[in-house]
Amino acid sequence: MEGEALSALCTPALVVDVDKVKRNAERMIKRCQNLGVQLRPHMKTHKTLECADIMTGGSRRCIVVSTLAEACFYADHGFDDILYAYSLPFDKVERCAALSERLDLFQVLLDHPHALEQLKKRPLRDGRLWHVWLKLDCGNGRAGVLHSEPEALRLAQAIAETEGVELTGVYAHCGNTYNCRGVEKIQAVAQETTDLTLQFMEKLKVVGITCKSSIGSTPSCSYPVKDMAQLSEVHPGNYAFYDVQQSVIGSCSLEDVAVRVLTRVIGHCPHRNQLLIDCGWCGLSLDGAGKLPTGYAVIEGHPNLKLLSMTQEHGRVEPISGLLDYSKYPLGSLLTLIPYHSCATAAMHPVYHVHSEGRLLGKWTPTRGW
Amino acid sequence: MEGEALSALCTPALVVDVDKVKRNAERMIKRCQNLGVQLRPHMKTHKTLECADIMTGGSRRCIVVSTLAEACFYADHGFDDILYAYSLPFDKVERCAALSERLDLFQVLLDHPHALEQLKKRPLRDGRLWHVWLKLDCGNGRAGVLHSEPEALRLAQAIAETEGVELTGVYAHCGNTYNCRGVEKIQAVAQETTDLTLQFMEKLKVVGITCKSSIGSTPSCSYPVKDMAQLSEVHPGNYAFYDVQQSVIGSCSLEDVAVRVLTRVIGHCPHRNQLLIDCGWCGLSLDGAGKLPTGYAVIEGHPNLKLLSMTQEHGRVEPISGLLDYSKYPLGSLLTLIPYHSCATAAMHPVYHVHSEGRLLGKWTPTRGW
Repeated sequence: MEGEALSALCTPALVVDVDKVKRNAERMIKRCQNLGVQLRPHMKTHKTLECADIMTGGSRRCIVVSTLAEACFYADHGFDDILYAYSLPFDKVERCAALSERLDLFQVLLDHPHALEQLKKRPLRDGRLWHVWLKLDCGNGRAGVLHSEPEALRLAQAIAETEGVELTGVYAHCGNTYNCRGVEKIQAVAQETTDLTLQFMEKLKVVGITCKSSIGSTPSCSYPVKDMAQLSEVHPGNYAFYDVQQSVIGSCSLEDVAVRVLTRVIGHCPHRNQLLIDCGWCGLSLDGAGKLPTGYAVIEGHPNLKLLSMTQEHGRVEPISGLLDYSKYPLGSLLTLIPYHSCATAAMHPVYHVHSEGRLLGKWTPTRGW
Repeated sequence: MEGEALSALCTPALVVDVDKVKRNAERMIKRCQNLGVQLRPHMKTHKTLECADIMTGGSRRCIVVSTLAEACFYADHGFDDILYAYSLPFDKVERCAALSERLDLFQVLLDHPHALEQLKKRPLRDGRLWHVWLKLDCGNGRAGVLHSEPEALRLAQAIAETEGVELTGVYAHCGNTYNCRGVEKIQAVAQETTDLTLQFMEKLKVVGITCKSSIGSTPSCSYPVKDMAQLSEVHPGNYAFYDVQQSVIGSCSLEDVAVRVLTRVIGHCPHRNQLLIDCGWCGLSLDGAGKLPTGYAVIEGHPNLKLLSMTQEHGRVEPISGLLDYSKYPLGSLLTLIPYHSCATAAMHPVYHVHSEGRLLGKWTPTRGW
C-alpha cells in the first residue's frame, strides 16, 4: 500500500500524519531545550518504536512508560533509561528486577513504605541499585503520597537510606490540568504543581537529600511556566498525537492533532435522519462520553454532523440541525473522525497507518497488554 | 503457568471460566434443539478459535462474525458456513469475493440496492453464487431496511432475481432487547421481532420467494418465545461469556457470567476514602458509563465497593457507604471485577487466561482489527 492514497485503506483505520507527529515532537524538544529542562517523553499514547524514535530525537534514551509490557518492548528494541512510572505493582517486582539487572538504567516509582519493603526483599545482583522515584500527589488526586503529609518526607528519607536502593527523583503528574480550559488555567495548575514539587525538594535538601524532580502532562508542557526550568525533567506524552480533548483544554489547536480514524458510510436511515458509519466503539473508544457538541468525535470538514452513539462496529451520525442531504454522503464514502482522546482511540487499533500529506508510508505496530 | 492458581497471574488480566462457557454454550445448543431452530452463534464477543469450538459443539460450522478480520481468521482455521453479518462495506467487496470463492459457504448481508450493485460488478468465479442475507430493521433502529417500507420487499425481490446472487435469508437483530428489564419485556421484543420477520417471510412467499430467516440477540435467545421455532436460525453471541449488563436485562444470573478482570490494589488514599487498583479503562473499557450502583463493574464479594472512575491504567474504588477498612485491602491484594459489557472488556485484552475451578488451563488469543 506504500505510496497509495489514504482512500486505499479498508476502514475503520487509524491514520497518523507523521509530519504533524514530527512537528509536535520537535516543538516539545525545542520548548524543553529553551526552558533548560530534560524531556522524558511518555510512551503510553502510541506504544510504538517509531513514534518513540521521533519523540526521543532518535536517542532511544530517557523515556517513561505506563505498563511493564511497554518497558519490556522498548528494552527489547534497544531503548534504555526507562522509567516505569507506575506505583510499584507487587506482582511485577521480579520482572522489574530483571529489567533493572539488564538495562543500564531502569527506574521504578513508589508511593508507599510497603513497596519499599518489596524492593528490599529482592536485592539486585552485581551490586546494582534499584533506581526509585517517589510519586508525589500535588493535587492531581490519583496515585502518590500527598505532598503535604509528613509521611512523604519520611518515605523519601527511607528510600534514600535503604541499602541497595537509590532515591532517583520525585515525580508528580499534573493530570488535573485536564480539568482546565485555556492557557491561563493550565499555567496556574502547572505553577502550583511546580511550586509544591520544588517546596518538597527544599524540604529534602534540609535533611541532606538531593535528587531529580519531574512533573508533567501534555497541557502543562505545551505551555510551561518559567519555574519549570528549576525542575530536572518533564514527562508529557499525549502531545505526539494530541486530540480534540487537548484542543478543548487549550494545549493545541485542532490542526495540531496528528491522528484520525477513517470511516465509511455504510447505511442511510432517512426515517431517523441519520446515517451509519463503520466505526463503533471498537474503532474509537467511548472516551469523552459523547459530550462534545459533535458527540464522540469531531467529523472533519462536516461541522454540522454529530457522532451521536456507537455500538461495537456501528456509529450513528446525525446533523446538528436540519435534514441530512444523503447525496453528500453516498454509501462507501469516507468520513474522517478526529478522536476525542487519542490514547483511548489508539488503544483500540492493532496497527496504525502512517502517511505524509495523505500518501501512505507504512505501518506502526503498538505493543499491548501489561 | 498451567495448573497454577489465578493469583499467579500478573494483573490486570481477563480470566475465563471455561466450565461456565461450556455450560452457557451447552444450554444455548439444547435450547435451540428443543425449540427446533438452527443456532448460528456470533463470534464478536470473544473472537477466539477455542470459544468458537465450544459454541459450535466442535463442528466449526455455522457461525456469524462482525468483522471481515474475524471471517478471515476463522476461515484460515478450518471454519466454514460463515455469515459476515454486516451491511456490505464497499471497500471490502473484493475480500468478500475471495472468501466466497474459497469457502464452501461464505455469506454476506446487505440493506441497500447500491450494495447489490457492488455484487453485480464483481461476479464470482467458477459459477459460484453470492449468498446474500437481507438485513431487516424490525424496530432495533440501527442497520437494515425498515420492515414496513415497500422497498424492503423490492430489495428482496431484486436480490432473488439477480444473476449470480442468491437470496439466502432475512436477518433481523433485536438489539432493542438491551433496553428491556426482565424476561417478560425481553419476550415482548422477541415476539415482536419474530412476528415482523415472519410477516415479511409471508410477503416474500406471496411473490414466490422462499429463503431462510434469522433473528437474534442474547436476551431473546436466552428466553426465546415459542414462535421463534418458525424461524430458520437464531444468532446470539454474548451468552458464551454473559456480563453484568445481561444480568441487569434479565438474560442470566450473575453466577452465569464466565469472565472476570483480575486486578490488584496498588494504592491507599485514606484522605479521599479511596483505594486505587491496577485496572483502568485499558483493562475494562468505559462501557456502561459507570452507571451501575457499583460504578463501572461489580467487584465480586465486595458489594459495598464502587469502581468510581478510571484513567488509562488506574481505577479509583470507594465504599458505597462508610469508611474503607484498608486492612482488608492490603497493597498487592487481588480484587475481581465482573465486567459490565464483556464484548467491550474482552476487546481490550490481547490474551484471555482460561481456568477451570481457579486453576489455569492456558490462553486464548483473539483476533483483532477489521
